[in-house]
Amino acid sequence: MKNIIILGSTGSVGASALKVIAAYPDRYNVVGLAAGGNLDLLFDQINRFQPKAVAIRNKEGIDALNARLKGRASPELYCGPDGYATLATLEQADTVISAISGAAGLLPTYAAIQAGKNIALANKETMVMAGALVINLAKSKSVDLLPVDSEHSAVFQSLQGHPREDLQRIVLTASGGPFRNFTPEEMASVTPVQALNHPNWNMGPKITIDSATLMNKGLEVIEAKWLFDLRLDQIDIMIHPQSIVHSMVEYGDGSIIAQMGVPDMITPIAYALSYPRHWPTPARRLDLEAIGTLTFDKPDFKKFRCLQLAFDAMKQGGSMPAVLNAANEVAVNAFLEGRIPFLRIPAVIEETMQAHRAGDVNRIEDVLEADRWAREKSQKIIKH
Amino acid sequence: MKNIIILGSTGSVGASALKVIAAYPDRYNVVGLAAGGNLDLLFDQINRFQPKAVAIRNKEGIDALNARLKGRASPELYCGPDGYATLATLEQADTVISAISGAAGLLPTYAAIQAGKNIALANKETMVMAGALVINLAKSKSVDLLPVDSEHSAVFQSLQGHPREDLQRIVLTASGGPFRNFTPEEMASVTPVQALNHPNWNMGPKITIDSATLMNKGLEVIEAKWLFDLRLDQIDIMIHPQSIVHSMVEYGDGSIIAQMGVPDMITPIAYALSYPRHWPTPARRLDLEAIGTLTFDKPDFKKFRCLQLAFDAMKQGGSMPAVLNAANEVAVNAFLEGRIPFLRIPAVIEETMQAHRAGDVNRIEDVLEADRWAREKSQKIIKH
Repeated sequence: MKNIIILGSTGSVGASALKVIAAYPDRYNVVGLAAGGNLDLLFDQINRFQPKAVAIRNKEGIDALNARLKGRASPELYCGPDGYATLATLEQADTVISAISGAAGLLPTYAAIQAGKNIALANKETMVMAGALVINLAKSKSVDLLPVDSEHSAVFQSLQGHPREDLQRIVLTASGGPFRNFTPEEMASVTPVQALNHPNWNMGPKITIDSATLMNKGLEVIEAKWLFDLRLDQIDIMIHPQSIVHSMVEYGDGSIIAQMGVPDMITPIAYALSYPRHWPTPARRLDLEAIGTLTFDKPDFKKFRCLQLAFDAMKQGGSMPAVLNAANEVAVNAFLEGRIPFLRIPAVIEETMQAHRAGDVNRIEDVLEADRWAREKSQKIIKH
Repeated sequence: MKNIIILGSTGSVGASALKVIAAYPDRYNVVGLAAGGNLDLLFDQINRFQPKAVAIRNKEGIDALNARLKGRASPELYCGPDGYATLATLEQADTVISAISGAAGLLPTYAAIQAGKNIALANKETMVMAGALVINLAKSKSVDLLPVDSEHSAVFQSLQGHPREDLQRIVLTASGGPFRNFTPEEMASVTPVQALNHPNWNMGPKITIDSATLMNKGLEVIEAKWLFDLRLDQIDIMIHPQSIVHSMVEYGDGSIIAQMGVPDMITPIAYALSYPRHWPTPARRLDLEAIGTLTFDKPDFKKFRCLQLAFDAMKQGGSMPAVLNAANEVAVNAFLEGRIPFLRIPAVIEETMQAHRAGDVNRIEDVLEADRWAREKSQKIIKH
């Protein structure tokens, strides 16, 4: 029996994870759930999965949940950053699904690793902001870091059974997002509604905008660099609009191993939980003959400036990826709120990066400081 | 140092194998070469690779080679079926590349397994004719049977590191050959020259015709059944005209692992020799962005009747696959010699199969007897 905590249970990945868990009541057990503000869904999840503990954003949430749970066996309730960290380190858990969106996922994930929990990692910001620290901590605690992003799961699956020393490069596929064929003029006037309409994947708003700017792929490059211990020049991006080949690994003899499937997060979540097994899932099966055609193309680093910025940030290293990530979160939020146009997103990030000198990252506090600084700076740039 | 014998050194696979071997003089050593009638090429290979022993078709070949080799350090020379078997069991060898075309490959391969040699298997007839016997013998001798066919190598590579019990099905890809889009009327008047013009692969004449009738894929289904211990309903065929995805394995969670690469036999030959490593090869690299589009379609079992006949033969089992194979060799030969039209190939095979009652195969002699009977029968059908 695997005892599981889900950080971000009411998000897209969290909800899919619960579908996988529900399919194997004799193998998986939910001991903790952490959510943000969606109390209705969280309440349903509590009733269904009976976790021992729950963490939410603030005290008002606890009161509201208590009011709804009265008369029933209630889980222990925690709130705020400390509450998330307490939940992430619950003694009864062995596995933590890290699926809180954005930088907020870093600290509870870090705490879970410190407590020796195996991690199913969907929160790529953990690796983007603090990759070196997280990898070293996971090694010293002998903790498994299993990727949940479909691309990283594909790479991870394609690495099984083949000698690591023969790896030549990995290729992360990217759908190219909804604006793949837009002209620069068309992109200038893109609205949040257009940007939230992803062609293949059904995801949360932040990551959907990141998919439209290709920043999501840039963050994945940084995540892959740390997860698989690669040089940056061993990571290539390929535009593959159908999102069927989830990623590939090329070996020294030119042989390419790829993982394919329907674009459904259930598959990589299920694999991270059942690894190294491939237990059946509630996901649809791939019907490749019905799809018929798969296409592949080079990415346009000029048109999708965010992708270039991510490579640049990783090259500079140190605190720069955390700055990139923070500025991106602020800019995406401003775009979603209608405060800046679509093409200002990379501009805000670039200005923030230019104002920053990458410093060493020796402790998690260095990361948080870079994150804090970049948020303030990018907010100023937006208001200016 | 791997000490290697090549059965069929002057054929397409044999020549590619020697390219791989030549790239690693410190890892691979040629101790024996067996060829048919191409003495010019064999003479060059002897000079280049200095094998300890050589086997050829007949005594005249030995005399001709002796005449050309005089004055030099000459290998031991053998001829005929016994000579091939002697060569295949040379004490100095640990690995035998089985690449003789057609049924003639069976006995020397069987002898090599009996002598405890590891086999890199390109001769699919060995498995089609005598799969159960060969698999059991290989197990009892603790011999590795490593596939060299690109499709089987792809399946083998896609099985590495994933639990065998989670395998759901394999998908063998097929280019569809040069007549994929032909009407039945167009196929009726196909000439040997047209049929020998394969769109992707550069192979010998027999296998090229088999690719045009799709019998090659049918034989591969039978080979895969034995090599990977599958039920027939776990093997699917997909038409993939670009020959880039060499085959795939689908697991219980819907995840598909595929192996891709340029259509060049060097890659699977190299993997069979370097397994589990992926040492660099002289083959070109795959440029997927340059290719751009991959397509997938269902096979047409009615138009390509040979594919259906192969499934039927395997379902009947026993001696029937050997009969299918022998009738096919006779019919393909008759087509290449202009004695029957293209669409008579499946008709001759079907008539031969209908005249045969599948018997048990307990000894290799049972296989040889079925093969002999089917050749005689199909010759009669052709002459009739």
